[in-house]
Amino acid sequence: MTVTADMLRSHPGYHGGVDEEALAACIDAVAECATACTACVDACLADDDPSRLRATIRADQDCADVCSTTATVLSRRTEPDVNVLRALLEACRVACRRSVDAAREHADRNDHCRVCTGAARRAEDACTTLLRRL
Amino acid sequence: MTVTADMLRSHPGYHGGVDEEALAACIDAVAECATACTACVDACLADDDPSRLRATIRADQDCADVCSTTATVLSRRTEPDVNVLRALLEACRVACRRSVDAAREHADRNDHCRVCTGAARRAEDACTTLLRRL
Amino acid sequence: MTVTADMLRSHPGYHGGVDEEALAACIDAVAECATACTACVDACLADDDPSRLRATIRADQDCADVCSTTATVLSRRTEPDVNVLRALLEACRVACRRSVDAAREHADRNDHCRVCTGAARRAEDACTTLLRRL
Amino acid sequence: MTVTADMLRSHPGYHGGVDEEALAACIDAVAECATACTACVDACLADDDPSRLRATIRADQDCADVCSTTATVLSRRTEPDVNVLRALLEACRVACRRSVDAAREHADRNDHCRVCTGAARRAEDACTTLLRRL
Repeated sequence: MTVTADMLRSHPGYHGGVDEEALAACIDAVAECATACTACVDACLADDDPSRLRATIRADQDCADVCSTTATVLSRRTEPDVNVLRALLEACRVACRRSVDAAREHADRNDHCRVCTGAARRAEDACTTLLRRL
Repeated sequence: MTVTADMLRSHPGYHGGVDEEALAACIDAVAECATACTACVDACLADDDPSRLRATIRADQDCADVCSTTATVLSRRTEPDVNVLRALLEACRVACRRSVDAAREHADRNDHCRVCTGAARRAEDACTTLLRRL
Repeated sequence: MTVTADMLRSHPGYHGGVDEEALAACIDAVAECATACTACVDACLADDDPSRLRATIRADQDCADVCSTTATVLSRRTEPDVNVLRALLEACRVACRRSVDAAREHADRNDHCRVCTGAARRAEDACTTLLRRL
Repeated sequence: MTVTADMLRSHPGYHGGVDEEALAACIDAVAECATACTACVDACLADDDPSRLRATIRADQDCADVCSTTATVLSRRTEPDVNVLRALLEACRVACRRSVDAAREHADRNDHCRVCTGAARRAEDACTTLLRRL
């Protein structure tokens, strides 16, 4: 079991009825996507010609920030507000989708874009799944 | 002029047609709200009985995180994606509204909740204004 | 292999001589600690009497923020500056130690403090190890 | 008066003896530096040849992250730990100095690097001043 699932289970209460497994999976997927996007931005910057990767860099920068905040907010169980969760998961889904669209064009040439595309796709799916269960 | 407006004006291009004044005002308002919410969470925690302030603390924690990410994303002008901006501004608006609703109940007794409510209301308004101009 | 190790390996260059394994282990440990601390803060807030947990909450809040920034900075390989890395790893080590000291007092009663103490101890160790190899 | 000073003054207690004015000035300076660095990274990315600005981009990315975390941690007054504050202010000072050194080379040609250098220098000074008063 991951630390995430361990922490969710040890919370004293205030669970608000969210599906525990979908929640833990989403937290881990968006946190992993944030890590992948941060590293992909950096790898793009080290490219021979970073100017050709501007759209990918921008998409990954935003995706890293939104995913990181989403992981943090989802990790809280006390006094949740479903409107905030929904709106943030929706923003996260959109940012992940943008990242997939921008990075996959370079997935053949850049291995880091390929790995990042995979992480962003999994995060997008995890947000979509969790949105359905809120 | 603020550093924010100064930086927006010195960007070499890729502006994407956003209203400069509304953008700078929104960045400053959400950054200020993040600062106010972080301090309000901390002041609530120092309260004689923090348990009565749980909903405010939670709302302010989320609002600080979402506002901080929104300020960061809005500060970028290169290769913007209007869908990401819209979804994030909408999430920020919802998080600010939640913070206003939770903190204003305590605004009479806690000065920090009063100041925080004002900052969150200004941030909510700035997001609403910018959303209309995107 | 984790996404972290995968991303580090796919970076086009600019490695700066850091021990790859210690780096990936440190990024994962501090990212996990950030997640654990965020959840622990929230679980402490849901306690019957959060006022008895103020020092733990504060320590975990700071530890989450510093660990999250450390994970982000360590994930970058392009044009590194060893002075920045050293100073940040040192700050992270201190924040993790503070978190261990504050949370372990409550580890017997609160399972979330026990899990968080373990994550903070692993993050502290990973920072110490990486500092030696920079 | 800024929202920062307003919030510091409305905190119910736990002040820990820090110089209020130096603290508010430091929070505002590092928050402003974070904003400037985020915008400078983005403006550098929009440059005709971003590859010549790699060291500045990397320095500003790290500086934005460390300054943002420092602003957040400094905004908390409850149960402070002077070792964490010192280590983080020291890391922030080093990150700001690195940013000044990297960006000033481009200050003549890029107005955003000039503005960012100023913000980073003010943040570095504010950290140094606050470190002396802790």
